[in-house]
Amino acid sequence: INFLNRNGVHGNGVHHVNIKGALYPIKSKSRRQRWEVKPSEMANNTLNPIRAIVDGMKLTPNPEKPMIALSIGDPTVFGNLPTDGAVLQAMKDAIDSQKYNGYAPSVGYLQSRQAVANFYSCPEAPLEAEDVILTSGCSQAIDLAISVLCNPGDNILVPCPGFSLYKTLAVSMGIEVKLYNLLPEKSWEVDLQHMESLIDERTSCLIITNPSNPCGSVFNKKHLQEILKVASRHCVPILADEIYSDMVRCSSPSMASLSSDVPILSCGGLAKRWLVPGWRMGWILIHDRDDIFGTEIRQGLVKLSQRILGACSIVQGALEQILDSTPQSFYNNTIGFLKSNSEICFSELSSVPGLNPVMPSGAMYIMIGIDMDHFPDFKNDVDFTERLVTEQSVFCLPASAFEYPNFFRIVVTVPEEMMLEACARIREFCQSHYRPPSRDSNDLDQ
Amino acid sequence: INFLNRNGVHGNGVHHVNIKGALYPIKSKSRRQRWEVKPSEMANNTLNPIRAIVDGMKLTPNPEKPMIALSIGDPTVFGNLPTDGAVLQAMKDAIDSQKYNGYAPSVGYLQSRQAVANFYSCPEAPLEAEDVILTSGCSQAIDLAISVLCNPGDNILVPCPGFSLYKTLAVSMGIEVKLYNLLPEKSWEVDLQHMESLIDERTSCLIITNPSNPCGSVFNKKHLQEILKVASRHCVPILADEIYSDMVRCSSPSMASLSSDVPILSCGGLAKRWLVPGWRMGWILIHDRDDIFGTEIRQGLVKLSQRILGACSIVQGALEQILDSTPQSFYNNTIGFLKSNSEICFSELSSVPGLNPVMPSGAMYIMIGIDMDHFPDFKNDVDFTERLVTEQSVFCLPASAFEYPNFFRIVVTVPEEMMLEACARIREFCQSHYRPPSRDSNDLDQ
Repeated sequence: INFLNRNGVHGNGVHHVNIKGALYPIKSKSRRQRWEVKPSEMANNTLNPIRAIVDGMKLTPNPEKPMIALSIGDPTVFGNLPTDGAVLQAMKDAIDSQKYNGYAPSVGYLQSRQAVANFYSCPEAPLEAEDVILTSGCSQAIDLAISVLCNPGDNILVPCPGFSLYKTLAVSMGIEVKLYNLLPEKSWEVDLQHMESLIDERTSCLIITNPSNPCGSVFNKKHLQEILKVASRHCVPILADEIYSDMVRCSSPSMASLSSDVPILSCGGLAKRWLVPGWRMGWILIHDRDDIFGTEIRQGLVKLSQRILGACSIVQGALEQILDSTPQSFYNNTIGFLKSNSEICFSELSSVPGLNPVMPSGAMYIMIGIDMDHFPDFKNDVDFTERLVTEQSVFCLPASAFEYPNFFRIVVTVPEEMMLEACARIREFCQSHYRPPSRDSNDLDQ
Repeated sequence: INFLNRNGVHGNGVHHVNIKGALYPIKSKSRRQRWEVKPSEMANNTLNPIRAIVDGMKLTPNPEKPMIALSIGDPTVFGNLPTDGAVLQAMKDAIDSQKYNGYAPSVGYLQSRQAVANFYSCPEAPLEAEDVILTSGCSQAIDLAISVLCNPGDNILVPCPGFSLYKTLAVSMGIEVKLYNLLPEKSWEVDLQHMESLIDERTSCLIITNPSNPCGSVFNKKHLQEILKVASRHCVPILADEIYSDMVRCSSPSMASLSSDVPILSCGGLAKRWLVPGWRMGWILIHDRDDIFGTEIRQGLVKLSQRILGACSIVQGALEQILDSTPQSFYNNTIGFLKSNSEICFSELSSVPGLNPVMPSGAMYIMIGIDMDHFPDFKNDVDFTERLVTEQSVFCLPASAFEYPNFFRIVVTVPEEMMLEACARIREFCQSHYRPPSRDSNDLDQ
């Protein structure tokens, strides 16, 4: 006997639906009566401090001077640093082979993982193909590394000043960010005591960026060992952001080569050293010689990699050839150019009153301190760099974007003549706004 | 006066650190004393049902018969369906231009977004460049769409049988999945009453896969309108997974072209129609003519896209040329091949006792029902397909992987002779295990 009429209305007037012979009441009052679609908390909590600050700036260049942007961490924008021909040829060979159009495994082709392992393996920190996970750019490498190590409510330790993505990712996942200080007076070495004081039982990851964005600093072996000691003492694994590794003008071992007990996820990619950041070819190198990550963390990374898969199969297919056939001269030329430009920028701005550049030794950045006391025209570094655009058409990123006020960051990948012109304009700008220490000051120290 | 000795130990023996002149006690007892690194809940909750089922199967082919895999939803694996030469040329032109090595905007190059908008715009559902977000494959498009619409504790409605990624992503984010039934006897149309009964006030998204993976079904206009009415009545936005759009052998409008009020995020990409799934070029088309998503959802998508950036810049750079210069004959040839193979498979297996194939009309799949009552040798579809490998070296995916037991899925992209051979082996397998209805049955219905 069927008590339902054709419209699914029960004899007693209550609406039901008939599902596989069973009756389910329709809970109509609990449904939405009108449209109300709001972005998720995760979307709302995905904050990009660089965008937040830059979008809030009035960037109106002086119409009489062509704009020079020293703000963008992309070495390709000026055309003076093309990638090597061997890199482009590897891509075209991968396309012509027609072998790399299908799905790669979510962690990458085995052969490509092996190529990365071979490239980075060293006796102190050997790597096999299974220790490499290929990702869609170093950003996804960092995302996977944080995602596998941290739960909401945990905290991670992040350098200050530092690359903003760590915080963007962590906060969107409900992970707390604790900033540890870098010391400009010590070439941006870590304030170890401060870092150690921040560690608690919910600290699930210590992020080390070396070489540093935005500082351009490179830690020496002794300092890296000191950092590893802190991690070891408190049993905190390290996420080593080494995307600028080997873009250095001094000796700089990898973190993993200096520790046999601290488990390390080293994140890298083609972006910087091979000058193709848009290709989104990144990787995680799993260093775990004491088997502390064990199979669980590895399996976790594999599972997370299956959410959206990883890097473009063509770039993966080209990877072995890229790593094997890029000539050493290409790397050397890039490093030589960055060294020369860094020295020009440092020497030009060192003699500008009110500015305190910190000499970098790697990556592609230099940080410039501003003696704000001597620039009463400006409230802060954001104001300072905004007016530098208005008056001199030179745009540098205020270091507030890296949670480090009263500094600004210069990207040293621009052509040399542009760097010289930019430095001259910065000098003119500072000279016109600089106020020397006043004799009439109320400063009680005098 | 400084009360600290050089090691930071206070006079009273309590450990402190001196940070910028202030003293902080070291909470040493709250730190970890030993290594204990566990994967996050998100990693643990990232479940891939296909892997879980396939990895649990004993796949030992019959050594006397070469293996035929009908399980992999990748049209490139057999080499019989290469992409078009124009697609490859567009990639090589993009590489040679050297214009696409740098970072693209996180939502994609404007010109590439415009190209996608032009390609999919129609009078009923017009699209501008700003309505397009480029992503790292359709998987990231789905990830972003779910991420922007849903909070933990919300639920989404997902087709059953259906593509497993929706559940993988949602569960990892703490979003509940409610499965609505598709009806094999109605060419896999949605059981509308069942779907409607599942909607409650926490339903934040209705996922429609059309054409369907795994069913190969294509909804007609009337059925799409019925689905839209349900969404409209309960004010639930739609995530339309249209990655197989235009891979059809019948008329199939897009969802967005049939509704002016229901806001729709349509996810697609190059993977299937252009036969390059490894390239990870996907997109979201934002359809919101009644301004229900408004700027908030758009901004949310932009913010989420900044977490790991999107598609490879080379593929983005090639996109306009790919969409403009791929000849119609290429699309037609693919569709013609899939139609022919689907008809072969359907007609061959329709006459096999105990099997009930459902004729598909799009995508690249066909679902085959198994009368388990007539195959007492096997516990279920997993057992059935496992033994099919053991005896006949033919591997089909058990539909338990799509939460739909007693079916299996065949991929129809294999070369014709392989399809014929596979069908002959499946017939032999079924004939040797089929048990006709028994006269001695205890079935009370007899």
